[in-house]
Amino acid sequence: MDQSISNDVVMSTKAVELHRQLTVVDGLQYPNWNRKIFEQLVEAGVSGVHATLVYHENTRETLTRFGEWERRFDEYSDLIRPVLEMEDVRRAKDERRVGVFFGAQNCSPIENDIELVGAFRRLGMLVMQLTYNNQSPLATGCYEQSDAGITRFGREVIHEMNRVGMVIDMSHSAERSTLEAIETSSRPIVISHANPLFFHDARRNKSDKVLKALAESGGMLGVSTYAMHLPGGGDCRLSEYCDMIARTVDLMGIDHVGLGTDLCQDQPAQTLIWMRHGRWSRSLNYGEGSADQPGWPVQPDWFKDARDYPNITSGLLSLGFQPHEIARIMGENWLDFMEKSIRPMSS
Amino acid sequence: MDQSISNDVVMSTKAVELHRQLTVVDGLQYPNWNRKIFEQLVEAGVSGVHATLVYHENTRETLTRFGEWERRFDEYSDLIRPVLEMEDVRRAKDERRVGVFFGAQNCSPIENDIELVGAFRRLGMLVMQLTYNNQSPLATGCYEQSDAGITRFGREVIHEMNRVGMVIDMSHSAERSTLEAIETSSRPIVISHANPLFFHDARRNKSDKVLKALAESGGMLGVSTYAMHLPGGGDCRLSEYCDMIARTVDLMGIDHVGLGTDLCQDQPAQTLIWMRHGRWSRSLNYGEGSADQPGWPVQPDWFKDARDYPNITSGLLSLGFQPHEIARIMGENWLDFMEKSIRPMSS
Repeated sequence: MDQSISNDVVMSTKAVELHRQLTVVDGLQYPNWNRKIFEQLVEAGVSGVHATLVYHENTRETLTRFGEWERRFDEYSDLIRPVLEMEDVRRAKDERRVGVFFGAQNCSPIENDIELVGAFRRLGMLVMQLTYNNQSPLATGCYEQSDAGITRFGREVIHEMNRVGMVIDMSHSAERSTLEAIETSSRPIVISHANPLFFHDARRNKSDKVLKALAESGGMLGVSTYAMHLPGGGDCRLSEYCDMIARTVDLMGIDHVGLGTDLCQDQPAQTLIWMRHGRWSRSLNYGEGSADQPGWPVQPDWFKDARDYPNITSGLLSLGFQPHEIARIMGENWLDFMEKSIRPMSS
Repeated sequence: MDQSISNDVVMSTKAVELHRQLTVVDGLQYPNWNRKIFEQLVEAGVSGVHATLVYHENTRETLTRFGEWERRFDEYSDLIRPVLEMEDVRRAKDERRVGVFFGAQNCSPIENDIELVGAFRRLGMLVMQLTYNNQSPLATGCYEQSDAGITRFGREVIHEMNRVGMVIDMSHSAERSTLEAIETSSRPIVISHANPLFFHDARRNKSDKVLKALAESGGMLGVSTYAMHLPGGGDCRLSEYCDMIARTVDLMGIDHVGLGTDLCQDQPAQTLIWMRHGRWSRSLNYGEGSADQPGWPVQPDWFKDARDYPNITSGLLSLGFQPHEIARIMGENWLDFMEKSIRPMSS
């Protein structure tokens, strides 16, 4: 008997059963965290989430974000647990909780101090983007007009991230910088949340060249459900999305594709303004939006909120993916990748 | 009767008399400030100094540097005074004191916050470099391999510096970034301390193209006495140096050339390490030095310390410069330029 999980997407019994067995890991989220969202994640069978800690926050503010998570781990201990090793995600699944690990969408936490890489890694920052849309001291963001690649400081930081086991994320970076990061890094890197350019032509999406280089070096792509990264935005259908995953797997190989939904559930408009403007601009910037559509985009009906992960399992199954392939895409790839990537090089 | 001012450079009575009448302004210094150096500056007839406040210091640390200067203004009130308008330099001359105004050699004081431009301008930071050798969030430094020009944040900051009357300094920037800063800025900018490339081929020196664009836009070059910027280093002769000034005046016009000695008197080796490494690198960087010459370079004998300004007056006179031209180069150009440049645009 089929049952409806949410949003009128009908799940087969087989899909429901398969989803229940998966260890689901999302390669990037930034919801407005609260009990409801954690409950929805547990309900949706999500065991691991890469939670964005900061966009433009500096060192001092990043510490506050860590402190806020300490309070959440206390307040919502029935629903969430911190992830310091990937085994914690397996434990979370057994406990019907969500394991949370942290990443920064920008290098602003380390400011101009290479020593802060090790300090934040120790605190549990497992991933860091070298740029967020703009030029950073390390690399160029995807909204700059010109890309000079990895900088002097950038090379130093990449080596340091390699050493301590902090994953380099180039989701919001420009192409040359991304290719140079792949080449400069001695360990595989990630694009935690973006889609291929062949799927939808957006500044944040990535070329075949980048995706191939990423896969060849052992890296990971997390595919995004953010409407701005989808053809037709919120009108994009689940079957189109899953077809994109199939084509991306053809391009990169089954081991190099995971989820990176970029779910920004329940965020107010002011969060979008912070993401787009930080404190760097006095001009109005629409980012991926426009004057006509300045706010949060409407999500597709098959991925409206944190309850909707089973829909992707269902869509992949309908398209003909095998259960073991679906398991890789829905979480096992992230687990394997993170497990080896966060180990310090000396150990 | 000729007399020797210092270091065996013989000054004519005419040169001594001319120097006494000048209002001397140095477009950039970074000595290890103490009573002796202030006394030497007074003795050398220097009335205005652009003092480097920071190299890599962040917002918090920059405030400490300002506080340290508050203590100096108190402790050495017989020798120095703060400069909040250029009339303060004239007053300093009348009082036989040195007027001190501030600049940052990097954009590190504002971190990622455009609002800090106005705050630091109010505190007395009259000049700020957009980069110091490396890529910054604003522009590219002269030691990077690739130069992408002025960034998104850079354009915003340039407009803000224009608005509040903070002078843009591209001394340590790469060529494309410098040309784009000249073009982006609605007010003339400076290269406060560097020499022309035609004089000595060093990464920090500037091409004819840059110097012409700078002059055509109404900007200023401060010529450097730092040994690394001189042909033959410390062996460069005063006559060669003054000939370079003459050629630079031919290129840029008499109103666009001043001093920017880059005097780093009595600084310990650890200051050089801070300048070269900040907190961005774990590798060894020699900056303008080399493995053979890792430390401070030996200064030419005609500009060993803060007593030696009269030698430049003497050298310019010997070369045939007219007294009114020498007055412009030795200080009046900086006074005129700064006077109009630090006025807020709204006033």
